[in-house]
Amino acid sequence: MILVNGKPEDRISISDRGLNYGDGLFETIAFRNGVAEFIDAHIQRLVDGCIRLNIPFQQLELLSTELDSIYQSLKDVDSVIKIVITRGSGGRGYLADNTAEPSRIISTHAYPSYPKSYQQQGVSVRLCQHKLSENPTLAGLKHLNRLDNVIARNEWSDENIAEGLMFDQSNHLIEGTMTNVFIVKSNQLISPKIQTSGVNGIIRAQLIRMANQLGINFKEDIISQTELNNADEVFVCNSINGIWPVKNIMDFEKTLSVGPITQQLQHVLLEVEK
Amino acid sequence: MILVNGKPEDRISISDRGLNYGDGLFETIAFRNGVAEFIDAHIQRLVDGCIRLNIPFQQLELLSTELDSIYQSLKDVDSVIKIVITRGSGGRGYLADNTAEPSRIISTHAYPSYPKSYQQQGVSVRLCQHKLSENPTLAGLKHLNRLDNVIARNEWSDENIAEGLMFDQSNHLIEGTMTNVFIVKSNQLISPKIQTSGVNGIIRAQLIRMANQLGINFKEDIISQTELNNADEVFVCNSINGIWPVKNIMDFEKTLSVGPITQQLQHVLLEVEK
Repeated sequence: MILVNGKPEDRISISDRGLNYGDGLFETIAFRNGVAEFIDAHIQRLVDGCIRLNIPFQQLELLSTELDSIYQSLKDVDSVIKIVITRGSGGRGYLADNTAEPSRIISTHAYPSYPKSYQQQGVSVRLCQHKLSENPTLAGLKHLNRLDNVIARNEWSDENIAEGLMFDQSNHLIEGTMTNVFIVKSNQLISPKIQTSGVNGIIRAQLIRMANQLGINFKEDIISQTELNNADEVFVCNSINGIWPVKNIMDFEKTLSVGPITQQLQHVLLEVEK
Repeated sequence: MILVNGKPEDRISISDRGLNYGDGLFETIAFRNGVAEFIDAHIQRLVDGCIRLNIPFQQLELLSTELDSIYQSLKDVDSVIKIVITRGSGGRGYLADNTAEPSRIISTHAYPSYPKSYQQQGVSVRLCQHKLSENPTLAGLKHLNRLDNVIARNEWSDENIAEGLMFDQSNHLIEGTMTNVFIVKSNQLISPKIQTSGVNGIIRAQLIRMANQLGINFKEDIISQTELNNADEVFVCNSINGIWPVKNIMDFEKTLSVGPITQQLQHVLLEVEK
């Protein structure tokens, strides 16, 4: 099912600023067991992002009503719900028209069918050659300017490699192409700072909150390739796949087992999602 | 007139990667006196960009035929022709489907009506606070990830300010929000290096070629804010507006007259466009 500004359509105007400039934001939400997981956090991030980009999004009630009809249409079929908000079609060139209404696009997609082993035994990852663009003003946002991720993800086609890790221009670890990343070193849980690049992931934020509740020592920090190579545990996470332990970093010829902190967080995350 | 993949339409699929990721490129072409100016250079940049982004664009003959029909529809009305090429709708998430056909979108727009004084007496510009993202892999490309330009252009609404100058993360001058920039210092023509950010403009390239033919001393270089402030001449340029001399840099309270090298290049550019 697809709703464009509340109507069942599958196309948008070619003058939409989302197409022309990537001038918008998106959310990818897990709909499982009849529930849109962490929906409040997703909506909050969307609203925060619109504020940061100065997109005058005031259709929150409409969006909420539309999501309800989407949930009903899905019945109990596990699905991915994608929301795209753009600045709409107004303006002259880059200059926006702040009286123009943003575009709302909600679409549903089949839940991806990754092997169960990805969560249980872990995944193989590689290091991406393409480096993330850096800009503090855009860092954290799940905006529609995603060429970095596209270029990085298309560096490999080997289906045995589940994810690629991405680095900034200074070769600091930031995230995966579609995930956030954590490492564990000497019982310290560490995730890269999202200051000049990277996305503020919903599951990343949940895991940081859970780690605090569990008394797991957590910090945001700069992570070099050497620190990644020396990590005791590594995992990647996102809203759709939960936590994937990393069992193998190809370029380092490094193999890891699923460590205790990774398992603990997986357990708690699965409990919350129930 | 709008053609989407050769058909008269004004919408595209919401699954198009141009919308979802800004996964594509565009060209903005001046159609004046019945001629699409520098069309070969625009098409060449589009093809080069597709190669750099690994977009399998092989519809050059179709595009050419479609442009011909666009020219005919315009008759002799001066217009702006915009071409957008995206990676199309294929793939799974960021992973592209290289068998999917790219999308071709051609649209025509009214020629913008800026005052004649902009070319003759020059324009007022300001310095944008928003800094350009840096990434050597993307630098030069006229890609669809244009949030930097959108954010910068929306810093001001004063219609007396025609353009904003943009700087990289190190505060080096790179370009205007919709233009390239040149300065003149002691008869030396200088344009910023397009190595980590900025667009390789068509008019910029033409002017560099013309400067060489005219025996004007030209170099690409790093330009600091101090060097900008000390310049004898400053001008911005693009395919639609030609050369706009800068008469006033607001933030520096700096005023300039239209200098001899700027005038010389304006003259030669107008001759070529005839």
